[in-house]
Amino acid sequence: MATPIIGIIMGSDSDLPVMQPAADILKEFGIDYELTVVSAHRTPLRMVEYAQKAKERGLKVIIAGAGGAAHLPGMVASVTTLPVIGVPVKSSNSIDGWDSVLSILQMPNGVPVATVALNAAKNAGILAAQIIGTADEAVAAKIAAYKTNLNDEVLTKVDKLKQQGWDNKFD
Amino acid sequence: MATPIIGIIMGSDSDLPVMQPAADILKEFGIDYELTVVSAHRTPLRMVEYAQKAKERGLKVIIAGAGGAAHLPGMVASVTTLPVIGVPVKSSNSIDGWDSVLSILQMPNGVPVATVALNAAKNAGILAAQIIGTADEAVAAKIAAYKTNLNDEVLTKVDKLKQQGWDNKFD
Amino acid sequence: MATPIIGIIMGSDSDLPVMQPAADILKEFGIDYELTVVSAHRTPLRMVEYAQKAKERGLKVIIAGAGGAAHLPGMVASVTTLPVIGVPVKSSNSIDGWDSVLSILQMPNGVPVATVALNAAKNAGILAAQIIGTADEAVAAKIAAYKTNLNDEVLTKVDKLKQQGWDNKFD
Amino acid sequence: MATPIIGIIMGSDSDLPVMQPAADILKEFGIDYELTVVSAHRTPLRMVEYAQKAKERGLKVIIAGAGGAAHLPGMVASVTTLPVIGVPVKSSNSIDGWDSVLSILQMPNGVPVATVALNAAKNAGILAAQIIGTADEAVAAKIAAYKTNLNDEVLTKVDKLKQQGWDNKFD
Amino acid sequence: MATPIIGIIMGSDSDLPVMQPAADILKEFGIDYELTVVSAHRTPLRMVEYAQKAKERGLKVIIAGAGGAAHLPGMVASVTTLPVIGVPVKSSNSIDGWDSVLSILQMPNGVPVATVALNAAKNAGILAAQIIGTADEAVAAKIAAYKTNLNDEVLTKVDKLKQQGWDNKFD
Amino acid sequence: MATPIIGIIMGSDSDLPVMQPAADILKEFGIDYELTVVSAHRTPLRMVEYAQKAKERGLKVIIAGAGGAAHLPGMVASVTTLPVIGVPVKSSNSIDGWDSVLSILQMPNGVPVATVALNAAKNAGILAAQIIGTADEAVAAKIAAYKTNLNDEVLTKVDKLKQQGWDNKFD
Amino acid sequence: MATPIIGIIMGSDSDLPVMQPAADILKEFGIDYELTVVSAHRTPLRMVEYAQKAKERGLKVIIAGAGGAAHLPGMVASVTTLPVIGVPVKSSNSIDGWDSVLSILQMPNGVPVATVALNAAKNAGILAAQIIGTADEAVAAKIAAYKTNLNDEVLTKVDKLKQQGWDNKFD
Amino acid sequence: MATPIIGIIMGSDSDLPVMQPAADILKEFGIDYELTVVSAHRTPLRMVEYAQKAKERGLKVIIAGAGGAAHLPGMVASVTTLPVIGVPVKSSNSIDGWDSVLSILQMPNGVPVATVALNAAKNAGILAAQIIGTADEAVAAKIAAYKTNLNDEVLTKVDKLKQQGWDNKFD
Repeated sequence: MATPIIGIIMGSDSDLPVMQPAADILKEFGIDYELTVVSAHRTPLRMVEYAQKAKERGLKVIIAGAGGAAHLPGMVASVTTLPVIGVPVKSSNSIDGWDSVLSILQMPNGVPVATVALNAAKNAGILAAQIIGTADEAVAAKIAAYKTNLNDEVLTKVDKLKQQGWDNKFD
Repeated sequence: MATPIIGIIMGSDSDLPVMQPAADILKEFGIDYELTVVSAHRTPLRMVEYAQKAKERGLKVIIAGAGGAAHLPGMVASVTTLPVIGVPVKSSNSIDGWDSVLSILQMPNGVPVATVALNAAKNAGILAAQIIGTADEAVAAKIAAYKTNLNDEVLTKVDKLKQQGWDNKFD
Repeated sequence: MATPIIGIIMGSDSDLPVMQPAADILKEFGIDYELTVVSAHRTPLRMVEYAQKAKERGLKVIIAGAGGAAHLPGMVASVTTLPVIGVPVKSSNSIDGWDSVLSILQMPNGVPVATVALNAAKNAGILAAQIIGTADEAVAAKIAAYKTNLNDEVLTKVDKLKQQGWDNKFD
Repeated sequence: MATPIIGIIMGSDSDLPVMQPAADILKEFGIDYELTVVSAHRTPLRMVEYAQKAKERGLKVIIAGAGGAAHLPGMVASVTTLPVIGVPVKSSNSIDGWDSVLSILQMPNGVPVATVALNAAKNAGILAAQIIGTADEAVAAKIAAYKTNLNDEVLTKVDKLKQQGWDNKFD
Repeated sequence: MATPIIGIIMGSDSDLPVMQPAADILKEFGIDYELTVVSAHRTPLRMVEYAQKAKERGLKVIIAGAGGAAHLPGMVASVTTLPVIGVPVKSSNSIDGWDSVLSILQMPNGVPVATVALNAAKNAGILAAQIIGTADEAVAAKIAAYKTNLNDEVLTKVDKLKQQGWDNKFD
Repeated sequence: MATPIIGIIMGSDSDLPVMQPAADILKEFGIDYELTVVSAHRTPLRMVEYAQKAKERGLKVIIAGAGGAAHLPGMVASVTTLPVIGVPVKSSNSIDGWDSVLSILQMPNGVPVATVALNAAKNAGILAAQIIGTADEAVAAKIAAYKTNLNDEVLTKVDKLKQQGWDNKFD
Repeated sequence: MATPIIGIIMGSDSDLPVMQPAADILKEFGIDYELTVVSAHRTPLRMVEYAQKAKERGLKVIIAGAGGAAHLPGMVASVTTLPVIGVPVKSSNSIDGWDSVLSILQMPNGVPVATVALNAAKNAGILAAQIIGTADEAVAAKIAAYKTNLNDEVLTKVDKLKQQGWDNKFD
Repeated sequence: MATPIIGIIMGSDSDLPVMQPAADILKEFGIDYELTVVSAHRTPLRMVEYAQKAKERGLKVIIAGAGGAAHLPGMVASVTTLPVIGVPVKSSNSIDGWDSVLSILQMPNGVPVATVALNAAKNAGILAAQIIGTADEAVAAKIAAYKTNLNDEVLTKVDKLKQQGWDNKFD
């Protein structure tokens, strides 16, 4: 196993289905990552240790997902100097996701968390890759290709819409 | 200084005006307390240490106030076995208090925080006294007297209203 | 039946599935409790009598669950001097739980309700045990063991994740 | 003093400036009312007694104003058979009025509260008059005149706008 | 058919399942009512005519249910002098009921709508009966009996809970 | 294919089921339209080009639907001088539609978007027709007929309700 | 006075400061308009008459502003076939504007209101001009010039920023 | 002027007081930045050009602030491959910041925006520095020092509190 540079952590293994796309997209970009469960509330000392050792272990970015009163991303950010990406999870104990979003996003001055949309672990992975890409042209090129592909997929769907009988003068 | 049995902590000294009524009411009840600043995000290790040592130092209840992405009450509750009362503070970086309320209240199963109303530090103090009162009849008696006084104050205001010319057949 | 020291009440028997975990965890902690239905709106005099007699009957903490315009916890708190834990229930007549949360949490100064998360009856039970534990070392020890177990369960899941093929350098 | 048929109550004398318009409009309609402070949380037994005796004392409608976790209107409605009009007050401890509105409006089946807009004590008075007017033609006629006057006031303002230089073909 | 004294109207026949309990409870109270569809947005002139003729046709109270941008209750109230009870309906085009509640509740001064909880048509019927009961002792007696029955139903459930093995010292 | 005068665009082909009613109602009104996918975020340059060429290609109104952080309607409006109708879509990544509504509605001064209700593509089509109808009497007449039909449909339902046994003196 | 083609109406003359920018921008575009007060709740019959006669009087677009339970735009839209632009006003009786926005925006299918941002009367005026511009090239040209001017104003501010000492390589 | 590696842009010069702390903290960290106004809605083509050229001009991170329907961060992110940090601004046209937050945060999969708290431009600057620090140890060291300083500032305040007469056994 190569040394991971992205750490993906989540407050509970029940968050795994939501968080897995972060791992998938990093694998697609060829970026080494690790994934584990670190609970701010049930394993607070493990959380502190994880955050304290993250940089020396070679991590460059931490992606942390949690739901409800979601303290994991912000607490990890309080301990480490690495950029932390927070994924608000619409978990079963969340009030429609509002608690998850606000308790990750609204960090006080001095300790930012780079928050992405509710359940948007895939975007967390892409953002981590973009961060790596600021100093790694190979990764930056993969992101550029990824964005081109997003564009092309839409054009393919435009064609498909036309074939279904919808028409327009623009395309 | 007597050994405090209630610890009042807050995330920032700017929260002091909001949190002071907790101290005031405990003083009124004759319950020994301590008060200090413990920031989850700026002094995470101090926070862990505070929570770890709280019980052995003689504390029985912790009152924790914080605003915005307010992690202090929940994180302290994750480390200590003592009951933790959370005071959501409508701080300057809060979105009308919603973030403060949700990030304190919506704790996951296993780690409760006894949340009181927005900015309701006085109620946090009363609740702490009620908790002490479950095993201390002298404190329980003071709370009973306090409640009687609340009742009497309303009746005094009823009389005052009458004197201002408002009248009713009930009183 | 031993004399219960925790009273669990709810506004309707339809709240029983949500409130039962409070009873279950108290049983797990070996704390005697009682459970019944007390409706603020349909049996207001029963509610007043329940709250008035709670302390003399030996109760030390009351857990009250209700949904919608949830007045039970706050009204019981207005009559008794005991600490009252409120469980906002996401009942069928609730607007996504917001009414339940706000009408329990936002109590005026003088009459606190120790509010837990939406539907978090288990946490209400744990909080009640923590309150008892402030003066009962045997209960305090059980809570400490419970928290250790929470921590261990996470570590077990970490191992399970590893066996599923997810790996990391930290664990 | 004539026997009042409308009782105006509020949780705190600090609500008086918000609630006074209910009294003013009833005076304008020539309907006898009484006004006093009845706190659900500080004087719960007074509240029960007020509600129990309201009908026998000759009241026909109760207007109850409260803010925050506003239990007064719903609790009075639980005890009396009279129609209860609830005025959500945007008190200093309220979160922008949302708690006041939801804890008054969202009553369970069986115990309605006729809720008016936030701080809309004047409308509570008009609604009480409309209720009296269902069986009192003199009052009904006054309401009809009041509505005609509302209409005329707008037309007067339309004229005033024209004189200010704004013009239109419709008027 | 006796002359109805309560008019139940709704913006769409799709609201009928939500609104029917208003009719059911009035039938139970022996109060004559009528029920029809009056759409503020699709039949505005019918709405105006319905409201204009309501009093002369013998109606004493109008119950109006609508969802989304729910203008029916408020617009009927603007035309008639009768008390109007508004039922916010969580219709398919509503954002979780918030639009329905706010567009019915937040009426300007001069034109109140007696708003009940989301989808609470049964409470609208009870409130209408309470209004009739202010001048009709027979109806008032039925409401008193109804409330006694609510109380007794809870006590029956308390007994049932006991038989299921839940026990308490209070009952 | 006639030259379309209404362009219907959406951020993703997954929005098609929500947006199709806009096309259906325009077809019913006999107004030529086109429909395609234009993603603000995945095909930003296509979006700019679409908006730049819209007027010269003969379009008079653009209907744009999007969900979540919905930038398509506002960004198209920033490029074109044509009126743009925005349809907030309650897409799978939306928080109950609030993000869609607010990110379309709350445009800064200078660049309006004519926003319709959540998922209300049919209304977007009707509004587009009304805009065309300001200068095309044939279209205006069709809208008038459409509104008459809305009214008649309600009356038909009134009759159906009567036949189901519901009765009233008004109809 | 030329025949107005845009009617600007508002629920109360207290809305005039918010609504005046709609008039100002139309004057700037040289489009004839009228302005008056039409209250849905205080002058419902005036409102119906205004909406019924709007088209025959030569109006092409109606701009309607209202706050709180804001029924004016939707009710006018229910009577007329003209496009109606709704301006949610954050009036003194509004809950932070949410009621105004939702009660204007969330219209049912069949009766759209083209809603603009809270208090955005200027944008309502621009949108009205864009609608007129769909069939009037002179107006369309003015809108194009207006947008060019918006762009140029930003560039001027960019220069001003540079002179204040802020610098960048892009400009 | 050194080549900037961070670009700070905002939708309006009225956002400058909110956004300036991003520049200040970057200056404190010794990181070269540029600052200018780029409006998504008033200068859409300038925005596209800015985003297209950002990487080739040497920028590594873009910080974009905007309020209301805030499209600038997301649209810039749609064009560039660089990481984009979004600052929701509570501008005068915003509904308490909710629109700003949701229209920046809730980006669809494929195009993340690293969102920070409402008005938290300082945190945006720190996050940008953390991103640069992933590949620049000198910057990483400055961030570590900054965090140590945050911790020390709290301890200084703890001492100050003690001198004011507040005391505790912990410190």
